Amino acid sequence: MASAEFLVELGRDSHRVHVGCGLLEDIGGLARSAGLASGRCALITDFNVSRLYAKPVLENLECYGFHPQLIEIAPGEHSKSLALLEQVYEQLAGAELERNSTIFALGGGVVGDLGGFAAATYLRGLPVVQIPTSMVAQVDSALGGKTAVNLRDAKNLVGAFYQPRLIVADVAALGSLPEREFREGLAEVIKYGAIMDEGFITWLEQEMSQILARETDHLAEIVVRSLRHKATIVERDEREGGLRKILNFGHTLGHALEASTAYGSYLHGEAVAIGMAAAARLSTRHAGLPAYDTERLRKLLAAAGLGTDLPGGWLTGDFIRSLRLDKKRRGDEVEFVLLDRLGHALTRKLTIEEIVKGAEA
Amino acid sequence: MASAEFLVELGRDSHRVHVGCGLLEDIGGLARSAGLASGRCALITDFNVSRLYAKPVLENLECYGFHPQLIEIAPGEHSKSLALLEQVYEQLAGAELERNSTIFALGGGVVGDLGGFAAATYLRGLPVVQIPTSMVAQVDSALGGKTAVNLRDAKNLVGAFYQPRLIVADVAALGSLPEREFREGLAEVIKYGAIMDEGFITWLEQEMSQILARETDHLAEIVVRSLRHKATIVERDEREGGLRKILNFGHTLGHALEASTAYGSYLHGEAVAIGMAAAARLSTRHAGLPAYDTERLRKLLAAAGLGTDLPGGWLTGDFIRSLRLDKKRRGDEVEFVLLDRLGHALTRKLTIEEIVKGAEA
Repeated sequence: MASAEFLVELGRDSHRVHVGCGLLEDIGGLARSAGLASGRCALITDFNVSRLYAKPVLENLECYGFHPQLIEIAPGEHSKSLALLEQVYEQLAGAELERNSTIFALGGGVVGDLGGFAAATYLRGLPVVQIPTSMVAQVDSALGGKTAVNLRDAKNLVGAFYQPRLIVADVAALGSLPEREFREGLAEVIKYGAIMDEGFITWLEQEMSQILARETDHLAEIVVRSLRHKATIVERDEREGGLRKILNFGHTLGHALEASTAYGSYLHGEAVAIGMAAAARLSTRHAGLPAYDTERLRKLLAAAGLGTDLPGGWLTGDFIRSLRLDKKRRGDEVEFVLLDRLGHALTRKLTIEEIVKGAEA
Repeated sequence: MASAEFLVELGRDSHRVHVGCGLLEDIGGLARSAGLASGRCALITDFNVSRLYAKPVLENLECYGFHPQLIEIAPGEHSKSLALLEQVYEQLAGAELERNSTIFALGGGVVGDLGGFAAATYLRGLPVVQIPTSMVAQVDSALGGKTAVNLRDAKNLVGAFYQPRLIVADVAALGSLPEREFREGLAEVIKYGAIMDEGFITWLEQEMSQILARETDHLAEIVVRSLRHKATIVERDEREGGLRKILNFGHTLGHALEASTAYGSYLHGEAVAIGMAAAARLSTRHAGLPAYDTERLRKLLAAAGLGTDLPGGWLTGDFIRSLRLDKKRRGDEVEFVLLDRLGHALTRKLTIEEIVKGAEA
């Protein structure tokens, strides 16, 4: 598979997804095909991504009649702050963007979340094109319309559901990623297998060496397969009223781990991998997941180079506090995502005590 | 008329509006009737409104099983900042609000805009009840789902379309308003006559003395009639794709006046009154509004105690800059709201030069 495209069907918010090699050199054409107005627009990216890809993207946009204002932010989770958001708003105002001006968000999850939220709220909403360049963003976060910034207290407490008008994932960008950032993205890929596709788990077990060697066809395959799985869920539950919650498999504990270690020790996917391994142990205790499958999932995560054990001293006040701030908490219980078998997820209410007790096993 | 209620029909965002005397003492009951979950919630208000009404509202909410966290902000447009918004978010996090927790926004336009935007974005959206206590909020801004905060550059550049689950307008609250704040609200009332109901203009001309004496029935009448007119428009064009733009009659110049005088010299309604008088002059020049009607509108505004002349030295760089930041600008033209007759509005593209030239006339 060299490239693929498909439609995410969300009524008036339906939009196309393009996955392939070399698509960064055709952003302008794809945007015009998606019906976006040329003229003033903004390209939001981080310094690292900018150095690699801003030039070809800006040039291609100009070819198609777009006049982009480049807005660069510092890389890293710390940029998902209200303070930085305000700076982005000021630059959008300085560029005199109008209600039909497009925001192109070129980068990883931070750029996608921040750029998406800026687009959702500037002038009460501008069209946004998500151009993910990291693994986590390409296989997961760019699709689904979740945008967010962080408060001091916890991740993603502020945000909006806001669908992009177009998603373009150029797998060539995955080739230049540092090894650690490439591997963290595999956590989300494995998640899609764990919650809804056991066959995908089997394929990942078999093909892991070619994936880690970043063979183009394998990269396109994991991106398309992950995003299609996500689209299936988002199409049925855009606002996370029910089904969509299963996408949070591994994330409740993962977020708590990130928050209690000050957004720095772990990459998002690394924390999610540990969270998934712990959630699998909780699944064995509370949802009948065979211990064999818990171990199979742990082994696959390890084969992808991801940690699966909670670190020493993980049970801190901040960790508990973050669990209490979880968006899926109701009273003293959290609606926790578990597996009853590999390839099938469900949610169950667990008390914070039950979660903490069963996480380490 | 002592009280009235009606439905704003917006599909799954439909909600009821209650207008009457003494409704602040029944907020909890009305909220439960609207299907809102009891338990943790937040009451956002400003220090002035809090002193007058927080106690009875908090007590009534407790009676109905709500446990409100009181969040007080400083009164005034300066509070519609991202810095203050962040403080509100931190307090919502401190109160451990959940996705079904309600935010009650008790106050004028600032509280409604800020509280509404906080509700739209905290945990990607919580239910919000708008409880307007100022004239501008009761007759206009509480309905329609527009929420916003300001940037340094211009008003309301950041925001969301986000419908409340319930609106409760207690006209008893209008009795305690300072004269100037009461009168500014009449600008929006007169606007509804100007853009869509000449009979309302006639009634306002006849009844202005009882309105200024704040007779309860007259207050309820102007609130219900204004909100019903607004609901009619919002039902047909929730996202301001077309028709809804006529609600901005007088606001393009009004906003520019507010922005260029640093959000202090004029109350919002006062600036809008001057903007409407200027827009009427522009209407005579560009849309055939009879000069007689321009004068009739000016007289009605004056009878309500509102200024109608642009101040000396109004044409500053900041004024032009604000016009250029108008959300309805496309290129060098602004989609400007004009009247072709009293009681009927339309939009026409005017250059900034035409606007400036015709505004003073």
